[in-house]
Amino acid sequence: MEKLILDGHLVSKEIREDLQKRVSVLKEKGITPSLATILVGDNPSSETYVKMKGNACEKIGMNSIRIHLPEETTTEQLLTTIKQLNEDTTVHGILLQHPVPAHIDERKAFETIAIEKDVDGVTSAGYGRTALGFGKYPSCTPAAIMEIIHHYELPVAGKHAVVVGRSPILGKPVSALLLNEDATVTTCHSRTTNLEAMLQQADIVVAAVGKPNFIKGDWLKEGAVVLDAGYNKGNIGDIDYDSCYKKASAITPVPGGVGPVTITMLLKQTVISAEETALKNQIA
Amino acid sequence: MEKLILDGHLVSKEIREDLQKRVSVLKEKGITPSLATILVGDNPSSETYVKMKGNACEKIGMNSIRIHLPEETTTEQLLTTIKQLNEDTTVHGILLQHPVPAHIDERKAFETIAIEKDVDGVTSAGYGRTALGFGKYPSCTPAAIMEIIHHYELPVAGKHAVVVGRSPILGKPVSALLLNEDATVTTCHSRTTNLEAMLQQADIVVAAVGKPNFIKGDWLKEGAVVLDAGYNKGNIGDIDYDSCYKKASAITPVPGGVGPVTITMLLKQTVISAEETALKNQIA
Repeated sequence: MEKLILDGHLVSKEIREDLQKRVSVLKEKGITPSLATILVGDNPSSETYVKMKGNACEKIGMNSIRIHLPEETTTEQLLTTIKQLNEDTTVHGILLQHPVPAHIDERKAFETIAIEKDVDGVTSAGYGRTALGFGKYPSCTPAAIMEIIHHYELPVAGKHAVVVGRSPILGKPVSALLLNEDATVTTCHSRTTNLEAMLQQADIVVAAVGKPNFIKGDWLKEGAVVLDAGYNKGNIGDIDYDSCYKKASAITPVPGGVGPVTITMLLKQTVISAEETALKNQIA
Repeated sequence: MEKLILDGHLVSKEIREDLQKRVSVLKEKGITPSLATILVGDNPSSETYVKMKGNACEKIGMNSIRIHLPEETTTEQLLTTIKQLNEDTTVHGILLQHPVPAHIDERKAFETIAIEKDVDGVTSAGYGRTALGFGKYPSCTPAAIMEIIHHYELPVAGKHAVVVGRSPILGKPVSALLLNEDATVTTCHSRTTNLEAMLQQADIVVAAVGKPNFIKGDWLKEGAVVLDAGYNKGNIGDIDYDSCYKKASAITPVPGGVGPVTITMLLKQTVISAEETALKNQIA
């Protein structure tokens, strides 16, 4: 059986080359696509993620506005910052790095992001549009998973997809995107009693559970397509790679699978937002 | 095995009695809960549905504002009507009867309904909030299904629920509500290739497919809970009742199952909206 390693760097490279051109075109029109990232507090992993995202922007000619607020920031102060960015016409996308310190109402902060700048796909309104089939900016990891599927032309319609995880930015939206492309979708989670039996039926497996090496090859059907959105400490996915590799027809590695494409989706969605701004300026 | 007929009229009766009291309390505060229904064109079934909903309002002391627009209404004209109702502080809920004539952009019309008056749960923003677990007004049929489940204390957590259908106001939101109550949820649809195999595993079956007598008893697991949201011509559900009755541990009849509770949910959500208005007035 042919065995595909789904190469996130390869998928990313092609898209980023395209984006670089689109950024140049926008700059000629006087618009530099700009992503504002907000980091609250001093979580070292979060600092690393935000830095990676900012650098990725700059690498393709985009503008990165990096806001770092102190640990003791209140919800109200954070909302004020977000509202200022909503109003700022030079900002095309806003990313609030998750998680924020526990004393902050994260959901309220997410919901304050203007939908046309919600390029990270965290608002409930954005989720609703995505799930009903007309969202512009799905959450980036689900968008990345679909991008990989499309790049490798893996069939989705009529397939049984089993998603393990139901978070608002991962399990739920990836279930919705797969359903909208005509997969039969089962969403599993911590309260699922028959996970192995479910996985044994899956043509497509998406792991989004946040438990290192959780899903074993024994649980999979021969020939399954396996997409690992897990990213645990020490660069370890949710998929037990070695045992799953043997069963899968296609599999994403960790690192180098879904991860790099996720950041690319953030860039892409910010560029699209900037293009919409350019279009509006043209009409106005 | 104990066999439960899930009696929608019984469930409705209890809730409507409670609502009647709440309406009285609101009226003493000078607020009459008001539902505006908009009917466009002359579809006789739609006329019947709208009339039933309006009458149900009045029966418990609510106000029913019935707007009937001609077949040739444009999208813009419909949007103007909706916006007027959004602004009208005496209106607590807005229902646009589906389907509207084909020349109207129904989605655009739905999306124009203010979220705090979307008591029928048709906006994507409302769907997003419901799916992420903090929606106030889910679509009425999914809400009715959950109400029946709660009334009869049918277990959901850890159960495998199979939803047949993926419409924005039925299959998708009922899948979301079941998932949020910890069911493992599979959403099936017209492109599902293994529907019978899926149904054979289901502890809970929700039929929302719009095909008369579509789901057969043979396809079900012994003891399944069967909820029929189908409502086809001649008062026929999506469930082949006689054969499914034999297999099920609990089943909704058609008529008299999900249908009456759906209208009750519309009343309930409008009363809640009016209560929120009363609370705001009190604070202001």
